[in-house]
Amino acid sequence: MQAWEITESFGLDHLRLVDRPDPEPGPRQVRLAIRARSLNFRDLLMVRGKYNPRQPLPLVPLSDGVGEVTAIGEGVERVKVGDRVSPIFAQRWIAGTPSRTELRSTLGGPLDGTLREAMVCDEEAVVHVPAHMTDVEAATLPCAALTAWSALVTQGALAAGQTVLVQGTGGVSVFALQIAKLLGARVIATSSSDEKLERVRALGADETLNYRTTPEWGKAAKALTGGEGVDHVVEVGGAGTLDQSIRAVRPGGAISLIGVLAGGAAPVNLTPVLMQNIRIQGVLVGHRQAHEALNRALGQHALRPVVDRVFPFAEASAAFEHLASQEHIGKVCIGN
Amino acid sequence: MQAWEITESFGLDHLRLVDRPDPEPGPRQVRLAIRARSLNFRDLLMVRGKYNPRQPLPLVPLSDGVGEVTAIGEGVERVKVGDRVSPIFAQRWIAGTPSRTELRSTLGGPLDGTLREAMVCDEEAVVHVPAHMTDVEAATLPCAALTAWSALVTQGALAAGQTVLVQGTGGVSVFALQIAKLLGARVIATSSSDEKLERVRALGADETLNYRTTPEWGKAAKALTGGEGVDHVVEVGGAGTLDQSIRAVRPGGAISLIGVLAGGAAPVNLTPVLMQNIRIQGVLVGHRQAHEALNRALGQHALRPVVDRVFPFAEASAAFEHLASQEHIGKVCIGN
Amino acid sequence: MQAWEITESFGLDHLRLVDRPDPEPGPRQVRLAIRARSLNFRDLLMVRGKYNPRQPLPLVPLSDGVGEVTAIGEGVERVKVGDRVSPIFAQRWIAGTPSRTELRSTLGGPLDGTLREAMVCDEEAVVHVPAHMTDVEAATLPCAALTAWSALVTQGALAAGQTVLVQGTGGVSVFALQIAKLLGARVIATSSSDEKLERVRALGADETLNYRTTPEWGKAAKALTGGEGVDHVVEVGGAGTLDQSIRAVRPGGAISLIGVLAGGAAPVNLTPVLMQNIRIQGVLVGHRQAHEALNRALGQHALRPVVDRVFPFAEASAAFEHLASQEHIGKVCIGN
Amino acid sequence: MQAWEITESFGLDHLRLVDRPDPEPGPRQVRLAIRARSLNFRDLLMVRGKYNPRQPLPLVPLSDGVGEVTAIGEGVERVKVGDRVSPIFAQRWIAGTPSRTELRSTLGGPLDGTLREAMVCDEEAVVHVPAHMTDVEAATLPCAALTAWSALVTQGALAAGQTVLVQGTGGVSVFALQIAKLLGARVIATSSSDEKLERVRALGADETLNYRTTPEWGKAAKALTGGEGVDHVVEVGGAGTLDQSIRAVRPGGAISLIGVLAGGAAPVNLTPVLMQNIRIQGVLVGHRQAHEALNRALGQHALRPVVDRVFPFAEASAAFEHLASQEHIGKVCIGN
Repeated sequence: MQAWEITESFGLDHLRLVDRPDPEPGPRQVRLAIRARSLNFRDLLMVRGKYNPRQPLPLVPLSDGVGEVTAIGEGVERVKVGDRVSPIFAQRWIAGTPSRTELRSTLGGPLDGTLREAMVCDEEAVVHVPAHMTDVEAATLPCAALTAWSALVTQGALAAGQTVLVQGTGGVSVFALQIAKLLGARVIATSSSDEKLERVRALGADETLNYRTTPEWGKAAKALTGGEGVDHVVEVGGAGTLDQSIRAVRPGGAISLIGVLAGGAAPVNLTPVLMQNIRIQGVLVGHRQAHEALNRALGQHALRPVVDRVFPFAEASAAFEHLASQEHIGKVCIGN
Repeated sequence: MQAWEITESFGLDHLRLVDRPDPEPGPRQVRLAIRARSLNFRDLLMVRGKYNPRQPLPLVPLSDGVGEVTAIGEGVERVKVGDRVSPIFAQRWIAGTPSRTELRSTLGGPLDGTLREAMVCDEEAVVHVPAHMTDVEAATLPCAALTAWSALVTQGALAAGQTVLVQGTGGVSVFALQIAKLLGARVIATSSSDEKLERVRALGADETLNYRTTPEWGKAAKALTGGEGVDHVVEVGGAGTLDQSIRAVRPGGAISLIGVLAGGAAPVNLTPVLMQNIRIQGVLVGHRQAHEALNRALGQHALRPVVDRVFPFAEASAAFEHLASQEHIGKVCIGN
Repeated sequence: MQAWEITESFGLDHLRLVDRPDPEPGPRQVRLAIRARSLNFRDLLMVRGKYNPRQPLPLVPLSDGVGEVTAIGEGVERVKVGDRVSPIFAQRWIAGTPSRTELRSTLGGPLDGTLREAMVCDEEAVVHVPAHMTDVEAATLPCAALTAWSALVTQGALAAGQTVLVQGTGGVSVFALQIAKLLGARVIATSSSDEKLERVRALGADETLNYRTTPEWGKAAKALTGGEGVDHVVEVGGAGTLDQSIRAVRPGGAISLIGVLAGGAAPVNLTPVLMQNIRIQGVLVGHRQAHEALNRALGQHALRPVVDRVFPFAEASAAFEHLASQEHIGKVCIGN
Repeated sequence: MQAWEITESFGLDHLRLVDRPDPEPGPRQVRLAIRARSLNFRDLLMVRGKYNPRQPLPLVPLSDGVGEVTAIGEGVERVKVGDRVSPIFAQRWIAGTPSRTELRSTLGGPLDGTLREAMVCDEEAVVHVPAHMTDVEAATLPCAALTAWSALVTQGALAAGQTVLVQGTGGVSVFALQIAKLLGARVIATSSSDEKLERVRALGADETLNYRTTPEWGKAAKALTGGEGVDHVVEVGGAGTLDQSIRAVRPGGAISLIGVLAGGAAPVNLTPVLMQNIRIQGVLVGHRQAHEALNRALGQHALRPVVDRVFPFAEASAAFEHLASQEHIGKVCIGN
């Protein structure tokens, strides 16, 4: 079977299409024929060698994918041949708080990822995908949608009547918007582009803020809640936007720290965090039990993920370049 | 000002219309002109002297109401004259776990209730009502809607993708259905009447079960979830229906014990509660912070409570008799 | 290797010592040489055929044990040869809420248990045991201690300043007493024997109640808390004692339903559960993550489990008979 | 009655002893004769005019105190004349999540504080103090002990077997150490002084780190947990120490942000917060229900607060100067 590999050195132009032996499932393992994948910003860092720590090579990139079960090992109970499933991002993280071992079991580095034709996983490390979605749609879920779900539901217990602020139109932010609406919450979305803000309004955003024309968007968001502050911010910008997020949030509110887009280190004014009882919560994707809950919710509501563009398997590098351009709304995908 | 009183002895025919002095608010207190009320099953027990323990007389019945603030005492910060508010059921229960003192501070017994023209409350003991509702609609919320919210949100952390079972078409059950839909959950409703089941379908129920024609409705509900079981049952029947509810619920699921309709004591098979890690949670209405969260959610979604019928203030007894008939869907109210 | 089996029919006199092939670990599996076991009431029901539902035969009984890792399969990361570990009760339940599949993965029925010389488990299905304990001591933990921990910590979030009521001197109750004291809580213990009450005082109980001489022990326990009620009851008697437990507990308090000792079905007065916001929580042992937390706590405090008596492997039936006599305090064990 | 006031301008040398009328309690209010107070770092900032935002003058400083109830208004149920109570820090914050109104109801700014002979509070705004403590000891609790309790118990659900890191020997840190030990947890303490580290060992610290000789104390703390990381850090240094705290903590662990000692704004590396699922939680003292739970725990264990030194009421300024010297261990107090 074929696989794309970062073989000897990092960089988009070092991706190599290689032949690998077809994997066979052992006891309680399953083999998947991968039919679709999606890209995350982490994958771009990984291929470029900017991900810290650097992962051992060779490495098959990507963590998101959907496949058909083509073989099962002895004792498998959770799936059967023909099922359509996704491997989970952290292959050993089933539920609860992750140990270091579980956090190191992630696809696309250090474990080989989904940018290949077939793979073998433990039966415990896959989830059934929502029946109403295409393969490509379902391939968008494992990192971005689960991150949004972990932030808002597993950790955030978001409910109708609460207000969420989402930043920009990347994968996690669009899922956060869609999931917040499923839960009955109110959504304020920010972007630098009025055109993109129109798009997120169409996806359900109740209020929008252009952070270029409203640089003090934290204060503006607070005003949109009658002055009390938003209940939850899904923070993807990191240190570059955190000060505004802190201004936006209500006493006792939450900021889910999702993203590394604007770099990880910058001066942050911590005093209001203390004075307002604010919670800043790091979110590294999520566990299988949350993934299953997410898929049930998306299935119940027949939610359609926002797919920006699909590249053929043969043109994987172009998909990475498109992601790097930051012109997408929603998810960039790779089919077969 | 006028008030309806249980003066000397219990019974619907002992309700007396009496004159009482107009109350004046002290420091941090507010005076309300009551404009609308709603009835709960508890009020019927109270007037009939069936409520245990019996409350001291004389007593003004009813705990639900909506009023306009007509005067405020010194130091009041939370409301102003002209605001439209509801007094809260347990006047001293602001948030968290209730103490015995807080549980004894309930309107309509032992404290005088809302079946009068005016009353005085602490400013901490009222909440603003959703702006889009009529007085009568808003008067339905303090007990029934808050009980449903406490069960599903405060204690239950219900989320999209989960399934809730509600029983019958009484006040709490209809609110539980409406609130579960706001939160994105799936609802199975039971009733003995196909006509009522049609009505709850119109209100958003995804599945319905007639418990007369399907006496094993617990098993039927479980089957409707693919065999895993429902996530949450809002139990209003008490001991008479609990065994079926236990059959309906999934491992680790929850049963909110709301109701005394079918009497309090009956043999219950506890073994599956243990074997399936089930939680049975008593729900006594709720606290002010939950009430405020409820009102925000209802306001955001412009939800309309289901009002069965409104009686004039002068005909309060007829309202109690209508509630006793159990022919209502939603809430029985009393205006001015 | 040798194993005790319920081969063809249930009953203590049908336990047979049989030869079974030595098991070999596959990928991500480990082989254990079992050195010690302990008995739970569930095991007695199982051997007698009283456990509902009856399990398929042949069956090796017992779920508790301690073994040395004697071989590991490919890819094992969590343990190494020579480690001293316990297999977990529900072999597939790692953390979070259990699914039906996870609840069916229990040792001693339907899966073969620990009453044999060796067994193979997934590496995910074992935990390291506290270093300070003997093999026999450590063999007492997997069901009884974990049940107490799940009730008080995982589900109960017990803290210093709270009061716990434990019933009798069986395995779970003694562990609940010891764990509650580790957490800084206050403990009220009940028993029918003043001699046993002296023993639990020596183990740390702050207050004791003889339920024979104080049949209204629920009221007495409440009085010992200044009238507010205990925070948590660890209920092992089931329906026979639940009414007293409900009387003992404070508004908003919790009753962990652990036991089937007094039968599962009896009339329970549910009204106070509702009126006092009481939570009744079924507890089926617990998950691996809770088991690891338990073992850390016991190790930190060098806690010694209470071992009633140890029987040699060859005399397994005698151990069951001793358990059936209900004369034990703490755990009945089987060595090699 | 006499009171110390910041009358016209800020600064330690502008504290004035003034006469104020004796306050009278209204309905549901109580009058306290204050017998002892303690100082917090916030009070020092307040008097110096460094607290942001600056509070309106005149202002009676200090939020901690103990008094005897000398009069009660109409309808008071929670206390009686002669009771020994503390006013709570945020007078309107009873439980749950604080609103902005509740966060503004704090003693010692904007509300007049405890540095006077008598004061009037709502009956809801006082708590009974542990009976075994002297007035001075009990006066140390309202801010520092409650902050530690809110961090570790209310928000942290700390349990035996977990490890807590506390920084230095200020009021909150010493209480965090003592409370963590009550709960059965393991404590690592840091300081720049070996002498102070000896003192915290005597108070129960299991491990100590001198951050002057071990500047990479985050890594050292992690090593003391076998490499997994500590479960909880009580962060009092703010931005100056947060990077080391992030290094110390385990995946999924918590950092309670308590302190402003090292200034509020500094570059923080947020990437590990995200990658390790770390929670940073601001802690602004706490609510009354937590305060009551704290007092029950301290009473049960007869815990003695660490009082550094007691100044007479007439020498209030000297107390502030002693606090400013940072030579104290535990709490600086003012008697009568």
